[in-house]
Amino acid sequence: MKEIEKILSFIIEIEKLKDVHRKTKPVGLERYENSAEHSWHVCLSALMLKDFANEPVNIDRVIKMLLIHDIGEIDVGDTIIYASETEELKSEEAAGVKRILSILPNGMGEEFMELWYEFESGETPDSRFAKAIDRVPPLLHNIHGGGHSWKTHGVTKDQVFSVNQRIEKGSEELWTVIRSKLEDAVNEGILN
Amino acid sequence: MKEIEKILSFIIEIEKLKDVHRKTKPVGLERYENSAEHSWHVCLSALMLKDFANEPVNIDRVIKMLLIHDIGEIDVGDTIIYASETEELKSEEAAGVKRILSILPNGMGEEFMELWYEFESGETPDSRFAKAIDRVPPLLHNIHGGGHSWKTHGVTKDQVFSVNQRIEKGSEELWTVIRSKLEDAVNEGILN
Repeated sequence: MKEIEKILSFIIEIEKLKDVHRKTKPVGLERYENSAEHSWHVCLSALMLKDFANEPVNIDRVIKMLLIHDIGEIDVGDTIIYASETEELKSEEAAGVKRILSILPNGMGEEFMELWYEFESGETPDSRFAKAIDRVPPLLHNIHGGGHSWKTHGVTKDQVFSVNQRIEKGSEELWTVIRSKLEDAVNEGILN
Repeated sequence: MKEIEKILSFIIEIEKLKDVHRKTKPVGLERYENSAEHSWHVCLSALMLKDFANEPVNIDRVIKMLLIHDIGEIDVGDTIIYASETEELKSEEAAGVKRILSILPNGMGEEFMELWYEFESGETPDSRFAKAIDRVPPLLHNIHGGGHSWKTHGVTKDQVFSVNQRIEKGSEELWTVIRSKLEDAVNEGILN
């Protein structure tokens, strides 16, 4: 029973992700999103968009990646993508993921640590697609929410187009649709 | 591109699950949990506990079930399990699931409707395990949170043991551990 006890400790520990606040508000809500509900949202988004991946993907692996992709934020918090992709922050986040996975018994966490590194690398079909999907909800939040997060954080249209172009690496068709929505946002004056 | 547009509409619609409040508070938080973050939590819990299922399960199907298991609550809200398993409520929830899945293109939703019914039936190895896992976090919330939800809703120990014994159908080992924790809760006076 010791193993189950350790897994229950892990289940309680990851609950802290429900208290990590992100930088956008879900469509229709007046509060900021947390990283746990975001993780659910991107899993279901990936599942429904899987047929639009550029390359064949293993959607079950993609979903597992997305289930764990943010758990390191329990230790380091969420930072806005337009400023956060530094070596130092990624290294701190990796240490957080490792700490949390080490609560699991029998080296169970190793498989997920590798999956996390694969996600971060964005260098495989599964991780390219997962990283593309991870960008979609925050863009929809801004597009349908008056560009609230872009405005609050002084994010420019050049930054938005340049950072989110990575969606194309996972799904060209998805990027075509999202890019068009971003162009509309520019025309409507909510992205400058 | 029409198909992607429909899927993006679905992605925005399901976001409402982030505003459906449940009856327990996550460990360490002073607010009630929402059904979106709960859905993420049970997916990751199932993934880590899969080796303790009584029967072989297809964990990828279990995770898909758990990703969608609560989306009907967008239309009917969350109700406490000790009062909610009526035919009428389940029928309303099914209609909600159907409405939301119908936003998807090309009959894509049918597969997930079937998966939802399978989950609700609890009559297959995958759904027995998924339903067992679905019970774990709210029990941990009460056990580690002074029995707050049991007290608020006047739930007795007889109800708790009787309703949650279904965990045994999915995992006898898990139920043994959880039952022992519930017995501790009785001894500590937080479950009466």
